Amino acid sequence: MNAQRRAPRAARRNEAARRAILTAALALTAQDGYARLTIERIAVKAGTGKQTIYRWWPSKGAVLLDALLMISEGDGDGTRPAELPDTGDLEADLKAVLHATVSELNTPEISKPMRALALEMLGDDVLAADYRQRLERPVKEMKRRRLRRAQLAGHLAPEVDLDVAIEMIWGPLRNRWLHREGPLTSSYVDTVLKTALDGMRPRP
Amino acid sequence: MNAQRRAPRAARRNEAARRAILTAALALTAQDGYARLTIERIAVKAGTGKQTIYRWWPSKGAVLLDALLMISEGDGDGTRPAELPDTGDLEADLKAVLHATVSELNTPEISKPMRALALEMLGDDVLAADYRQRLERPVKEMKRRRLRRAQLAGHLAPEVDLDVAIEMIWGPLRNRWLHREGPLTSSYVDTVLKTALDGMRPRP
Repeated sequence: MNAQRRAPRAARRNEAARRAILTAALALTAQDGYARLTIERIAVKAGTGKQTIYRWWPSKGAVLLDALLMISEGDGDGTRPAELPDTGDLEADLKAVLHATVSELNTPEISKPMRALALEMLGDDVLAADYRQRLERPVKEMKRRRLRRAQLAGHLAPEVDLDVAIEMIWGPLRNRWLHREGPLTSSYVDTVLKTALDGMRPRP
Repeated sequence: MNAQRRAPRAARRNEAARRAILTAALALTAQDGYARLTIERIAVKAGTGKQTIYRWWPSKGAVLLDALLMISEGDGDGTRPAELPDTGDLEADLKAVLHATVSELNTPEISKPMRALALEMLGDDVLAADYRQRLERPVKEMKRRRLRRAQLAGHLAPEVDLDVAIEMIWGPLRNRWLHREGPLTSSYVDTVLKTALDGMRPRP
Protein backbone atom coordinates (compact mmCIF):
# COMPACT_ATOMS: atom_id res chain seq x y z
CA MET A 1 0.00 0.00 0.00
CA ASN A 2 2.70 2.41 0.98
CA ALA A 3 4.76 1.35 -1.98
CA GLN A 4 1.81 1.96 -4.27
CA ARG A 5 1.33 5.44 -2.86
CA ARG A 6 5.00 6.18 -3.10
CA ALA A 7 5.25 5.17 -6.75
CA PRO A 8 3.02 7.90 -8.17
CA ARG A 9 4.59 10.44 -5.85
CA ALA A 10 8.06 9.45 -7.13
CA ALA A 11 6.77 9.63 -10.68
CA ARG A 12 5.40 13.12 -10.06
CA ARG A 13 8.70 14.15 -8.51
CA ASN A 14 10.60 12.75 -11.49
CA GLU A 15 8.28 14.51 -13.87
CA ALA A 16 8.78 17.81 -12.04
CA ALA A 17 12.56 17.35 -12.17
CA ARG A 18 12.39 16.47 -15.85
CA ARG A 19 10.45 19.62 -16.68
CA ALA A 20 12.78 21.75 -14.59
CA ILE A 21 15.78 20.33 -16.44
CA LEU A 22 14.26 20.82 -19.89
CA THR A 23 13.11 24.34 -19.08
CA ALA A 24 16.55 25.20 -17.71
CA ALA A 25 18.25 23.87 -20.85
CA LEU A 26 16.03 26.02 -23.08
CA ALA A 27 16.50 29.14 -21.00
CA LEU A 28 20.27 28.77 -20.77
CA THR A 29 20.61 28.17 -24.50
CA ALA A 30 18.48 31.20 -25.36
CA GLN A 31 20.41 33.31 -22.86
CA ASP A 32 24.06 32.32 -23.33
CA GLY A 33 24.16 30.21 -26.47
CA TYR A 34 24.65 26.51 -26.93
CA ALA A 35 28.44 26.55 -26.78
CA ARG A 36 28.28 27.63 -23.14
CA LEU A 37 25.58 25.11 -22.20
CA THR A 38 26.87 22.36 -19.90
CA ILE A 39 25.19 19.60 -17.92
CA GLU A 40 26.58 21.28 -14.81
CA ARG A 41 24.92 24.61 -15.55
CA ILE A 42 21.63 22.91 -16.39
CA ALA A 43 21.76 21.05 -13.06
CA VAL A 44 22.44 24.22 -11.08
CA LYS A 45 19.64 26.14 -12.76
CA ALA A 46 17.16 23.25 -12.48
CA GLY A 47 18.11 22.57 -8.86
CA THR A 48 18.92 18.91 -9.53
CA GLY A 49 22.06 16.82 -9.37
CA LYS A 50 24.24 16.29 -12.43
CA GLN A 51 23.80 12.54 -11.97
CA THR A 52 20.04 12.85 -12.47
CA ILE A 53 20.64 14.43 -15.86
CA TYR A 54 23.29 11.90 -16.88
CA ARG A 55 20.93 9.08 -15.87
CA TRP A 56 18.26 10.29 -18.27
CA TRP A 57 20.19 11.80 -21.17
CA PRO A 58 23.45 10.89 -22.94
CA SER A 59 24.36 14.46 -23.99
CA LYS A 60 23.30 18.09 -23.84
CA GLY A 61 22.01 17.73 -27.40
CA ALA A 62 19.69 14.96 -26.22
CA VAL A 63 18.38 17.20 -23.42
CA LEU A 64 17.65 19.91 -25.96
CA LEU A 65 15.80 17.49 -28.25
CA ASP A 66 13.50 16.51 -25.39
CA ALA A 67 13.07 20.16 -24.46
CA LEU A 68 11.93 20.98 -27.98
CA LEU A 69 9.61 17.96 -27.98
CA MET A 70 8.16 19.26 -24.72
CA ILE A 71 7.38 22.58 -26.43
CA SER A 72 6.08 21.04 -29.63
CA GLU A 73 3.81 18.55 -27.88
CA GLY A 74 2.48 20.94 -25.26
CA ASP A 75 4.40 18.59 -22.95
CA GLY A 76 2.33 15.57 -23.87
CA ASP A 77 -0.85 16.92 -22.35
CA GLY A 78 -2.61 16.58 -25.65
CA THR A 79 -3.06 20.31 -26.19
CA ARG A 80 -1.21 20.32 -29.48
CA PRO A 81 -3.44 19.35 -32.37
CA ALA A 82 -2.31 16.17 -34.07
CA GLU A 83 -3.63 17.45 -37.40
CA LEU A 84 -3.12 20.54 -39.49
CA PRO A 85 -6.25 22.69 -39.87
CA ASP A 86 -8.64 21.63 -42.60
CA THR A 87 -11.31 24.17 -43.45
CA GLY A 88 -11.40 22.98 -47.05
CA ASP A 89 -9.28 25.95 -48.17
CA LEU A 90 -5.77 24.52 -48.53
CA GLU A 91 -3.97 27.81 -49.13
CA ALA A 92 -5.63 29.56 -46.17
CA ASP A 93 -4.95 26.61 -43.87
CA LEU A 94 -1.29 26.36 -44.81
CA LYS A 95 -0.91 30.11 -44.57
CA ALA A 96 -2.08 29.97 -40.96
CA VAL A 97 0.34 27.13 -40.20
CA LEU A 98 3.28 28.85 -41.90
CA HIS A 99 2.59 32.18 -40.20
CA ALA A 100 2.65 30.42 -36.83
CA THR A 101 6.01 28.85 -37.75
CA VAL A 102 7.42 32.21 -38.85
CA SER A 103 6.40 33.67 -35.54
CA GLU A 104 8.00 30.74 -33.61
CA LEU A 105 11.23 31.06 -35.58
CA ASN A 106 11.33 34.78 -34.82
CA THR A 107 11.15 34.01 -31.09
CA PRO A 108 14.72 33.66 -29.75
CA GLU A 109 13.62 31.41 -26.85
CA ILE A 110 12.54 28.83 -29.42
CA SER A 111 14.76 29.68 -32.36
CA LYS A 112 18.10 29.56 -30.55
CA PRO A 113 17.68 26.06 -29.07
CA MET A 114 16.32 24.83 -32.42
CA ARG A 115 19.33 26.18 -34.27
CA ALA A 116 21.67 24.64 -31.71
CA LEU A 117 19.97 21.28 -32.16
CA ALA A 118 20.08 21.56 -35.96
CA LEU A 119 23.83 22.18 -35.75
CA GLU A 120 24.44 19.38 -33.30
CA MET A 121 22.51 16.92 -35.43
CA LEU A 122 24.61 17.60 -38.51
CA GLY A 123 27.53 16.08 -36.63
CA ASP A 124 25.73 13.51 -34.45
CA ASP A 125 24.03 10.72 -36.38
CA VAL A 126 22.43 9.09 -33.34
CA LEU A 127 20.83 12.33 -32.23
CA ALA A 128 19.76 13.03 -35.81
CA ALA A 129 18.09 9.62 -36.09
CA ASP A 130 16.32 10.20 -32.78
CA TYR A 131 15.13 13.60 -33.97
CA ARG A 132 13.86 12.20 -37.24
CA GLN A 133 12.02 9.39 -35.48
CA ARG A 134 10.42 11.39 -32.70
CA LEU A 135 9.88 14.86 -34.12
CA GLU A 136 10.39 15.11 -37.85
CA ARG A 137 8.55 11.95 -38.89
CA PRO A 138 5.28 12.61 -37.03
CA VAL A 139 5.23 16.23 -38.19
CA LYS A 140 5.86 15.14 -41.77
CA GLU A 141 3.11 12.51 -41.53
CA MET A 142 0.74 15.22 -40.36
CA LYS A 143 1.62 17.43 -43.34
CA ARG A 144 1.28 14.47 -45.69
CA ARG A 145 -2.20 13.67 -44.36
CA ARG A 146 -3.38 17.24 -44.93
CA LEU A 147 -1.99 17.32 -48.46
CA ARG A 148 -3.45 13.91 -49.25
CA ARG A 149 -6.90 15.14 -48.25
CA ALA A 150 -6.36 18.17 -50.51
CA GLN A 151 -5.35 15.86 -53.33
CA LEU A 152 -8.46 13.71 -52.86
CA ALA A 153 -10.56 16.88 -52.85
CA GLY A 154 -9.04 17.90 -56.19
CA HIS A 155 -7.00 20.85 -54.91
CA LEU A 156 -3.68 19.25 -55.82
CA ALA A 157 -3.02 17.41 -59.06
CA PRO A 158 -3.23 13.62 -58.65
CA GLU A 159 0.32 13.11 -59.93
CA VAL A 160 1.90 15.40 -57.32
CA ASP A 161 4.46 13.61 -55.13
CA LEU A 162 3.47 14.65 -51.60
CA ASP A 163 7.02 14.51 -50.25
CA VAL A 164 8.14 16.89 -52.98
CA ALA A 165 5.15 19.11 -52.20
CA ILE A 166 6.14 19.22 -48.51
CA GLU A 167 9.69 20.15 -49.43
CA MET A 168 8.56 22.90 -51.79
CA ILE A 169 6.18 24.44 -49.28
CA TRP A 170 8.24 24.14 -46.08
CA GLY A 171 11.81 23.82 -47.39
CA PRO A 172 12.42 27.45 -48.37
CA LEU A 173 11.33 28.63 -44.92
CA ARG A 174 13.67 26.25 -43.16
CA ASN A 175 16.53 27.15 -45.51
CA ARG A 176 16.10 30.85 -45.07
CA TRP A 177 15.99 30.37 -41.31
CA LEU A 178 18.86 27.90 -40.93
CA HIS A 179 21.22 29.65 -43.31
CA ARG A 180 20.04 33.16 -42.35
CA GLU A 181 19.51 34.02 -45.97
CA GLY A 182 16.97 36.73 -45.45
CA PRO A 183 14.27 37.99 -43.14
CA LEU A 184 11.59 35.51 -42.13
CA THR A 185 8.34 37.25 -42.90
CA SER A 186 4.76 36.25 -43.52
CA SER A 187 4.90 37.77 -46.97
CA TYR A 188 7.89 35.57 -47.86
CA VAL A 189 6.08 32.34 -46.93
CA ASP A 190 2.92 33.58 -48.67
CA THR A 191 4.86 34.00 -51.92
CA VAL A 192 6.50 30.59 -51.62
CA LEU A 193 3.19 28.94 -50.79
CA LYS A 194 1.36 30.58 -53.70
CA THR A 195 4.11 29.62 -56.16
CA ALA A 196 4.26 26.05 -54.94
CA LEU A 197 0.48 25.57 -54.98
CA ASP A 198 0.17 27.19 -58.42
CA GLY A 199 2.68 24.64 -59.66
CA MET A 200 0.75 21.71 -58.19
CA ARG A 201 -2.86 22.44 -59.06
CA PRO A 202 -4.75 20.03 -61.29
CA ARG A 203 -4.28 20.89 -64.98
CA PRO A 204 -7.50 21.70 -66.76
CA MET B 1 66.92 42.19 -63.52
CA ASN B 2 67.55 39.20 -61.35
CA ALA B 3 64.93 40.37 -58.90
CA GLN B 4 62.46 40.68 -61.76
CA ARG B 5 63.17 37.17 -62.90
CA ARG B 6 62.95 35.83 -59.37
CA ALA B 7 59.57 37.39 -58.73
CA PRO B 8 57.54 35.36 -61.23
CA ARG B 9 59.43 32.24 -60.24
CA ALA B 10 58.52 32.82 -56.58
CA ALA B 11 54.95 33.46 -57.61
CA ARG B 12 54.87 30.19 -59.55
CA ARG B 13 56.35 28.38 -56.59
CA ASN B 14 53.76 29.92 -54.28
CA GLU B 15 51.00 28.97 -56.65
CA ALA B 16 52.25 25.39 -56.82
CA ALA B 17 52.38 25.21 -53.01
CA ARG B 18 48.91 26.71 -52.76
CA ARG B 19 47.45 24.11 -55.11
CA ALA B 20 49.25 21.30 -53.32
CA ILE B 21 47.81 22.47 -49.99
CA LEU B 22 44.26 22.82 -51.30
CA THR B 23 44.39 19.48 -53.06
CA ALA B 24 45.74 17.81 -49.92
CA ALA B 25 42.97 19.33 -47.80
CA LEU B 26 40.31 17.99 -50.16
CA ALA B 27 41.83 14.54 -50.35
CA LEU B 28 42.29 14.22 -46.59
CA THR B 29 38.73 15.35 -45.87
CA ALA B 30 37.28 12.91 -48.39
CA GLN B 31 39.43 10.13 -47.01
CA ASP B 32 39.31 10.54 -43.21
CA GLY B 33 36.60 13.08 -42.55
CA TYR B 34 36.79 16.67 -41.46
CA ALA B 35 37.12 15.96 -37.74
CA ARG B 36 40.52 14.37 -38.33
CA LEU B 37 41.75 17.09 -40.66
CA THR B 38 44.55 19.18 -39.14
CA ILE B 39 46.90 21.83 -40.50
CA GLU B 40 49.74 19.45 -39.62
CA ARG B 41 48.35 16.61 -41.73
CA ILE B 42 47.67 18.97 -44.65
CA ALA B 43 51.28 20.22 -44.48
CA VAL B 44 52.70 16.69 -44.45
CA LYS B 45 50.59 15.58 -47.40
CA ALA B 46 51.25 18.75 -49.39
CA GLY B 47 54.98 18.65 -48.63
CA THR B 48 54.98 22.18 -47.21
CA GLY B 49 55.65 23.66 -43.79
CA LYS B 50 52.84 24.31 -41.32
CA GLN B 51 53.94 27.96 -41.20
CA THR B 52 53.21 28.37 -44.91
CA ILE B 53 49.63 27.28 -44.29
CA TYR B 54 49.18 29.45 -41.21
CA ARG B 55 50.55 32.43 -43.14
CA TRP B 56 47.87 32.11 -45.81
CA TRP B 57 44.83 30.79 -43.93
CA PRO B 58 43.41 31.39 -40.44
CA SER B 59 41.78 27.95 -40.04
CA LYS B 60 41.26 24.58 -41.67
CA GLY B 61 37.76 25.73 -42.63
CA ALA B 62 39.28 28.63 -44.55
CA VAL B 63 41.60 26.21 -46.40
CA LEU B 64 38.60 24.14 -47.37
CA LEU B 65 36.69 27.16 -48.63
CA ASP B 66 39.57 28.04 -50.95
CA ALA B 67 39.83 24.43 -52.03
CA LEU B 68 36.16 24.40 -53.02
CA LEU B 69 36.60 27.72 -54.82
CA MET B 70 39.50 26.16 -56.68
CA ILE B 71 37.22 23.35 -57.87
CA SER B 72 34.28 25.59 -58.68
CA GLU B 73 36.36 28.09 -60.65
CA GLY B 74 38.47 25.61 -62.52
CA ASP B 75 41.23 27.20 -60.44
CA GLY B 76 40.73 30.64 -61.91
CA ASP B 77 41.93 29.64 -65.36
CA GLY B 78 38.65 30.78 -66.83
CA THR B 79 37.47 27.31 -67.83
CA ARG B 80 34.31 27.51 -65.78
CA PRO B 81 31.53 29.30 -67.61
CA ALA B 82 30.46 32.49 -65.84
CA GLU B 83 26.91 32.02 -67.10
CA LEU B 84 24.32 29.26 -66.96
CA PRO B 85 23.46 27.79 -70.35
CA ASP B 86 20.87 29.67 -72.35
CA THR B 87 19.49 27.81 -75.35
CA GLY B 88 16.14 29.57 -74.99
CA ASP B 89 14.61 26.50 -73.31
CA LEU B 90 14.64 27.34 -69.60
CA GLU B 91 13.56 23.94 -68.32
CA ALA B 92 16.10 22.04 -70.44
CA ASP B 93 18.90 24.41 -69.46
CA LEU B 94 18.16 24.20 -65.75
CA LYS B 95 17.78 20.43 -65.99
CA ALA B 96 21.30 20.19 -67.36
CA VAL B 97 22.63 22.40 -64.58
CA LEU B 98 20.78 20.50 -61.83
CA HIS B 99 21.85 17.11 -63.18
CA ALA B 100 25.47 18.27 -63.05
CA THR B 101 24.98 19.36 -59.45
CA VAL B 102 23.37 16.03 -58.53
CA SER B 103 26.33 14.26 -59.99
CA GLU B 104 28.80 16.50 -58.07
CA LEU B 105 26.93 15.96 -54.81
CA ASN B 106 27.05 12.22 -55.37
CA THR B 107 30.84 12.38 -55.68
CA PRO B 108 32.38 11.90 -52.20
CA GLU B 109 35.57 13.81 -53.12
CA ILE B 110 33.43 16.92 -53.59
CA SER B 111 30.49 16.19 -51.33
CA LYS B 112 32.43 15.43 -48.16
CA PRO B 113 34.46 18.65 -48.10
CA MET B 114 31.33 20.63 -49.01
CA ARG B 115 29.41 19.10 -46.13
CA ALA B 116 32.29 19.78 -43.76
CA LEU B 117 32.36 23.40 -44.86
CA ALA B 118 28.57 23.74 -44.53
CA LEU B 119 28.83 22.47 -40.95
CA GLU B 120 31.75 24.67 -40.06
CA MET B 121 30.00 27.74 -41.43
CA LEU B 122 26.94 27.21 -39.26
CA GLY B 123 29.17 27.88 -36.27
CA ASP B 124 31.70 30.34 -37.77
CA ASP B 125 30.20 33.67 -38.85
CA VAL B 126 33.41 35.03 -40.38
CA LEU B 127 33.88 31.97 -42.55
CA ALA B 128 30.19 32.06 -43.47
CA ALA B 129 30.43 35.71 -44.54
CA ASP B 130 33.51 34.90 -46.61
CA TYR B 131 31.70 32.00 -48.25
CA ARG B 132 28.68 34.12 -49.05
CA GLN B 133 30.82 36.87 -50.51
CA ARG B 134 33.14 34.74 -52.62
CA LEU B 135 31.12 31.69 -53.61
CA GLU B 136 27.41 31.98 -52.88
CA ARG B 137 26.88 35.53 -54.11
CA PRO B 138 28.45 35.16 -57.57
CA VAL B 139 26.68 31.84 -58.12
CA LYS B 140 23.38 33.37 -57.09
CA GLU B 141 23.95 36.34 -59.37
CA MET B 142 24.54 33.93 -62.23
CA LYS B 143 21.26 32.13 -61.51
CA ARG B 144 19.44 35.45 -61.20
CA ARG B 145 20.75 36.60 -64.59
CA ARG B 146 19.55 33.42 -66.30
CA LEU B 147 16.11 33.69 -64.70
CA ARG B 148 15.86 37.39 -65.53
CA ARG B 149 16.49 36.61 -69.19
CA ALA B 150 13.77 33.96 -69.01
CA GLN B 151 11.43 36.48 -67.45
CA LEU B 152 12.15 39.02 -70.19
CA ALA B 153 11.53 36.30 -72.77
CA GLY B 154 8.13 35.61 -71.22
CA HIS B 155 8.96 32.18 -69.78
CA LEU B 156 8.46 33.30 -66.19
CA ALA B 157 5.62 35.52 -65.02
CA PRO B 158 6.68 39.15 -64.65
CA GLU B 159 5.63 39.26 -60.98
CA VAL B 160 7.87 36.32 -59.97
CA ASP B 161 10.43 37.27 -57.30
CA LEU B 162 13.69 35.86 -58.69
CA ASP B 163 15.19 35.15 -55.26
CA VAL B 164 12.13 33.09 -54.35
CA ALA B 165 12.40 31.32 -57.70
CA ILE B 166 16.04 30.45 -57.01
CA GLU B 167 15.13 29.08 -53.59
CA MET B 168 12.28 27.00 -54.99
CA ILE B 169 14.39 25.50 -57.77
CA TRP B 170 17.67 24.91 -55.92
CA GLY B 171 16.59 24.81 -52.26
CA PRO B 172 15.03 21.34 -52.18
CA LEU B 173 18.16 19.82 -53.68
CA ARG B 174 20.41 21.44 -51.11
CA ASN B 175 18.06 20.45 -48.28
CA ARG B 176 17.84 16.87 -49.33
CA TRP B 177 21.59 16.74 -49.62
CA LEU B 178 22.53 18.59 -46.42
CA HIS B 179 19.98 16.86 -44.21
CA ARG B 180 20.27 13.51 -46.00
CA GLU B 181 16.55 13.34 -46.43
CA GLY B 182 16.48 11.07 -49.41
CA PRO B 183 18.43 9.93 -52.44
CA LEU B 184 19.75 12.65 -54.75
CA THR B 185 18.55 11.64 -58.18
CA SER B 186 17.98 13.33 -61.48
CA SER B 187 14.31 12.40 -61.37
CA TYR B 188 13.93 14.16 -58.00
CA VAL B 189 15.33 17.44 -59.32
CA ASP B 190 13.28 17.07 -62.51
CA THR B 191 10.09 16.87 -60.45
CA VAL B 192 11.04 19.85 -58.30
CA LEU B 193 12.00 21.88 -61.36
CA LYS B 194 8.81 21.09 -63.22
CA THR B 195 6.64 21.94 -60.19
CA ALA B 196 8.47 25.19 -59.54
CA LEU B 197 8.35 26.31 -63.18
CA ASP B 198 4.68 25.37 -63.52
CA GLY B 199 4.01 27.62 -60.53
CA MET B 200 5.88 30.54 -62.05
CA ARG B 201 4.74 30.61 -65.67
CA PRO B 202 2.89 33.65 -66.98
CA ARG B 203 -0.87 33.34 -66.39
CA PRO B 204 -2.89 33.42 -69.57
